[in-house]
Amino acid sequence: MKRLFYLSTCVFLLISGRAFSQFLPNIINHPSEISTSYAPFAYTLKESLKNDRSCYDRLAIMCDKFGHRLSGSSSLENAIDWIVNEMKNDGFDTVYTEKVMVPHWIRGKESCSIVAPRKKELTILGLGGTIATSENGLTAEVFVAKSFDHIRLNADKVKGKIVLFNVPFTKYGETVAYRVSGCVEAAKLGAVGVLVRSVGPESMNTPHTGMLRYNDTIPKIPSAAITLEDAELIARLSEQGEKVTVTLNLQGKYLPDAQSRNIIAEIRGREKPDEIIVFGGHIDSWDVGQGAMDDAGGCFVAWDVLKAIKKLKIQPRRTMRCVMWTNEENGLRGAAQYAENRVNVIGKHKLAIESDAGTFKPKGFSLSGSPDAKVILKNITSLLSPYGITTINDGEAGADVSPLTSKGVAGAGLLVDDTRYFWYHHTEADTMDKLKPEELAECIFAMGVLATVAADIPFEIPMDNH
Amino acid sequence: MKRLFYLSTCVFLLISGRAFSQFLPNIINHPSEISTSYAPFAYTLKESLKNDRSCYDRLAIMCDKFGHRLSGSSSLENAIDWIVNEMKNDGFDTVYTEKVMVPHWIRGKESCSIVAPRKKELTILGLGGTIATSENGLTAEVFVAKSFDHIRLNADKVKGKIVLFNVPFTKYGETVAYRVSGCVEAAKLGAVGVLVRSVGPESMNTPHTGMLRYNDTIPKIPSAAITLEDAELIARLSEQGEKVTVTLNLQGKYLPDAQSRNIIAEIRGREKPDEIIVFGGHIDSWDVGQGAMDDAGGCFVAWDVLKAIKKLKIQPRRTMRCVMWTNEENGLRGAAQYAENRVNVIGKHKLAIESDAGTFKPKGFSLSGSPDAKVILKNITSLLSPYGITTINDGEAGADVSPLTSKGVAGAGLLVDDTRYFWYHHTEADTMDKLKPEELAECIFAMGVLATVAADIPFEIPMDNH
Repeated sequence: MKRLFYLSTCVFLLISGRAFSQFLPNIINHPSEISTSYAPFAYTLKESLKNDRSCYDRLAIMCDKFGHRLSGSSSLENAIDWIVNEMKNDGFDTVYTEKVMVPHWIRGKESCSIVAPRKKELTILGLGGTIATSENGLTAEVFVAKSFDHIRLNADKVKGKIVLFNVPFTKYGETVAYRVSGCVEAAKLGAVGVLVRSVGPESMNTPHTGMLRYNDTIPKIPSAAITLEDAELIARLSEQGEKVTVTLNLQGKYLPDAQSRNIIAEIRGREKPDEIIVFGGHIDSWDVGQGAMDDAGGCFVAWDVLKAIKKLKIQPRRTMRCVMWTNEENGLRGAAQYAENRVNVIGKHKLAIESDAGTFKPKGFSLSGSPDAKVILKNITSLLSPYGITTINDGEAGADVSPLTSKGVAGAGLLVDDTRYFWYHHTEADTMDKLKPEELAECIFAMGVLATVAADIPFEIPMDNH
Repeated sequence: MKRLFYLSTCVFLLISGRAFSQFLPNIINHPSEISTSYAPFAYTLKESLKNDRSCYDRLAIMCDKFGHRLSGSSSLENAIDWIVNEMKNDGFDTVYTEKVMVPHWIRGKESCSIVAPRKKELTILGLGGTIATSENGLTAEVFVAKSFDHIRLNADKVKGKIVLFNVPFTKYGETVAYRVSGCVEAAKLGAVGVLVRSVGPESMNTPHTGMLRYNDTIPKIPSAAITLEDAELIARLSEQGEKVTVTLNLQGKYLPDAQSRNIIAEIRGREKPDEIIVFGGHIDSWDVGQGAMDDAGGCFVAWDVLKAIKKLKIQPRRTMRCVMWTNEENGLRGAAQYAENRVNVIGKHKLAIESDAGTFKPKGFSLSGSPDAKVILKNITSLLSPYGITTINDGEAGADVSPLTSKGVAGAGLLVDDTRYFWYHHTEADTMDKLKPEELAECIFAMGVLATVAADIPFEIPMDNH
């Protein structure tokens, strides 16, 4: 019945030619009124995105034209040029970039093979930022480890070995520790290299790259991800009593820092243009696949929020700012630069939204900030529940907005059905075919409702000053 | 209640030291009595396999020691030597091999890259038996085809092109047509090469190899499988109006036929040793992964049927024969040689069972043969239904037993949960980690009941003479 009312109003307004911004309420006295006052807007936005595959199609063009976009690469910069040009054609109030100096690590030739007890080539990806081996590679016996405790309890057996962390995937936040810190923990005990079982729950012989973190006080050792299949093979051989020896050859290296850019596009606020609702994702990716899901999808969803709002001729009270941060994967320099450039106006950011967990079917948001801020945000996200988007958790909003949320800005991270996210994460399989036009449109809807209503309400979302 | 009875009988016999062969009934007058008469045997077999991971562990040792086993390779012959030696230690009545001359195709260096509109390396596997390209590869524009009809209706556009068959997986039997016959159908229209979207429902950038079939009257053109991801990329570029050009380089070739072997092991029948129940799988594999699922698993399940029956000290009326055929993947020469060597005693085979659809959780059997034979077989397989193995279909038994079943021998193919079979089929991901000890044990149980009861019943399973 409600829907019928919105629909008829909608049709009336379309026929009468009145602006869609009429769907924003004129008067609202209390956050509890948000869910009724903005329901026509939510409905209108949802209807406007029905059967809209333009986000998917433009994302595919970008991914297919430029491929993956590691910091420092020309493909990243060419993609940024292309996006900025497209954004300017979209006619937003503001489109600009800001310079960011980013690390420039390049993957060299790399290989790994078991040389004993039986020769076998392994499928690998060096971890991002790994040092190189010597030109002829590093040959050593493998110690198969089940945990950090396991190597500490076998310190004598680890010395001089290549440690394989063969730890099955549980939660990303847990298992990724072996990828990030394996190199340091193993080197502390005298290991000469690290192999890590790829961080993912399923494999079709699929290696996953990702960042490692060295510690300047501990020797740096070369580190690569191998597949679940090969990790299990080495573990079985080892359990069968075989000494497994591998030769690991990695030739990646750092070049001098390169110039990259954050991309910023806005619809200026009609009443408080200096107050900002920022939303976006990161435009850089690892140097495999297309970085479609991680995180071009998040960027393009944010972009299409702006596009959808402009198409509906809506101008909220505050400025809506879409940002595509650069260098999330191996530095977070884009996010840091964004915050540094606005150090005196952090407080003008009233909400920071990120989509960096995939753009599959949206489930809701994880919220951070003060209790008062969360009350308002939950009133806004309640607008999504009639559409089946109901999961509202406390949690981090995202890495790129963390320099803002850590200063107290309220944050929201888009939550999606992540069943398969870690199947493809940081692999050659993070490609357009994994995404669906209708799911992208649903993500635009979810982020669009939260960003636009947050930008329009007369109440201010308070900072967290604790 | 029934189970309790079997259990107490079982315990009594164990304590009293009487042979387990007591579980085979002394008198049985009609096939309809099978399900009650052999129920204690089925129960005993099931119990004997409880928590038994020996099949898995021996399979892992073989797969890890020898890897994949393409016809003509030394790894295949070394694996056969190892298996024969193990079988002899198992103490079966008969263990021998028979010589089979097999095709010897080897994969050379191979690569494929998009060279326009944007350079990209593709992940490929040349199809088994493909001719080579010239040393510098074959460079041509791609025509993206959705079906055989599609190329026939666009014959003018296909000439001189590399045809990409980008046909999504439906059923293996349907989609595999593009892998097998794509080369001929495209060459008929003047195409110079074929790329086929890998035959599988899911991909993590995973190419699937497999056999193609040339026709001596049609020019032979080089053919390779690409991943779902890359096939979709090329299709999208093409839909975006781009001319996609690739360079395909394949250096595979045929060497002279090589010598391989079928492996045969038996428990001789106590009354009719010349009558045979044959069961097995194929020991060769493609030259990727470990061929764990396709089809070492099937072979080892059959082997462990024999092992389980011997351990239970059962000697059925007829001979139980486990066969590991060679060269199923690219020739079926092992199966042909087996039948040729026994051309005058085909009729002595009373049932031929194959496991070549994976060794995941068993569901039942597909049966072939005369209606009378099927009545008996269904009486036997009804023994499995208390254990949840209930799917009994009409269908083919398997490629390796087809030279027998085509002559009228009753056939049975083990059906398993095949949800993921075609994820890994003919890929680097067909590895031990995909199998589970308990599922292998269940397959041994299913095949063991069918094979043993068929070997023991006083009735003869009739040939199909139509």
